[in-house]
Amino acid sequence: MANSPSGDSMLDRLVRILDSFDANNPSLSVSSLAHRADIPKATMYRLLDELVSHDLLARDNSGNVRLGLRLWELANRSATTQDLRTAAMPFMEDINQLIGQNTQLSVLHQDEVLIIERLSRPGSVVNQANVAGRMPVHRTSMGMALLAFSRPEVIHGFLERHRELMAATHPNFRAEMAEIRRNGFASFDGFIDPETTGAAAPILDESGYQIAVLSVVVPRESDTLQSVALALRTAARGISRALGARS
Amino acid sequence: MANSPSGDSMLDRLVRILDSFDANNPSLSVSSLAHRADIPKATMYRLLDELVSHDLLARDNSGNVRLGLRLWELANRSATTQDLRTAAMPFMEDINQLIGQNTQLSVLHQDEVLIIERLSRPGSVVNQANVAGRMPVHRTSMGMALLAFSRPEVIHGFLERHRELMAATHPNFRAEMAEIRRNGFASFDGFIDPETTGAAAPILDESGYQIAVLSVVVPRESDTLQSVALALRTAARGISRALGARS
Repeated sequence: MANSPSGDSMLDRLVRILDSFDANNPSLSVSSLAHRADIPKATMYRLLDELVSHDLLARDNSGNVRLGLRLWELANRSATTQDLRTAAMPFMEDINQLIGQNTQLSVLHQDEVLIIERLSRPGSVVNQANVAGRMPVHRTSMGMALLAFSRPEVIHGFLERHRELMAATHPNFRAEMAEIRRNGFASFDGFIDPETTGAAAPILDESGYQIAVLSVVVPRESDTLQSVALALRTAARGISRALGARS
Repeated sequence: MANSPSGDSMLDRLVRILDSFDANNPSLSVSSLAHRADIPKATMYRLLDELVSHDLLARDNSGNVRLGLRLWELANRSATTQDLRTAAMPFMEDINQLIGQNTQLSVLHQDEVLIIERLSRPGSVVNQANVAGRMPVHRTSMGMALLAFSRPEVIHGFLERHRELMAATHPNFRAEMAEIRRNGFASFDGFIDPETTGAAAPILDESGYQIAVLSVVVPRESDTLQSVALALRTAARGISRALGARS
């Protein structure tokens, strides 16, 4: 692929441009986009014209730039996540209604928790997770449940890459993993909001390894954690079955 | 941007590659991807390596290619559609529960109806709409409701570009538009499944122009169409208000 004088390809630059937007920055000025993507401003203007003509980016009324609807369309209409979402959605609605707290569906991706879907409830406890947002594995019930039900080589690889962090934050890692597997769910006190606890149950494939995780955030010291966990596990099994029936 | 000998840019090729996947073709062999994207096979292999290294595309176990999770993440975490979805979701769940049929949220994009979100119900009537899928304006209640509540210049532009089609299929277009505006909703007999009828109510901005449309598909000859329409209009107004409060 043709490279710029600085040696990075068009695709490197495109990914940096798209990566400059996030939930807190859905709209950027051209200068701030050029700055965040580390692209010379003159080059940025030229790229922008082409990206806008394909509707991968769009200009809003103020002249700022946002992601284009065509990008959303291309990325979503055959997404791997779509089957998972379709299978999970009715069960997520059940959990959302019955437990009355925000409900998330997430996967393990590039050593982080990637949120695929989220249903909110008015009056739920604070929850920082956004759709397509990421959370750290080692500080969330989602991450710990995903890890505990991963294939041995996935767990091993993760530990290799994050040895110091995990030794410092999870000194009894093996015992923790064993307990999560025994319980069929993980719980973890909120690291952003200490008043909350996350509970997470894995969605498993036929070999018993995780495909995704279903989770809720409940008020801390909730005496209902055990019954919440049981409801989550029930819903997660329903999703596993719905996915199996589909494939 | 650097062009290939054939004159199309890297971005043209990238868009054609992403456009080769859809709900019916979420996974493609490299040859069939090269064929669909109209890219020489040797070039395709080279592009593929770079696209896979960025996780914009991913190889599955069989060696076939799918969209990568990173593409989904980049396209979704700051999508314009996210605010609309967040505001609409609780109301869509209400409609989905109370009416008991598939419920869609859609926008007008490039002269077509683009489905942003869909909630399904077990036992609902057949409905071909998929998330990020497109439907024709002139044959859906969604499209006709979106058009009726568009700014005059949008309606005019649409008619200019689709003059013959609209003359043939909607000979009384002006009267139809006036009726939809008077009723506050559109209904249209299903064009894929003639046993169904779609009903759609617009989500409006403060000036009374459409931002999106909320719709359900109900069995044809349903004597509940009027009450369904009233429920839809109620939910659509709730979404408009939730969006307004946010901006």
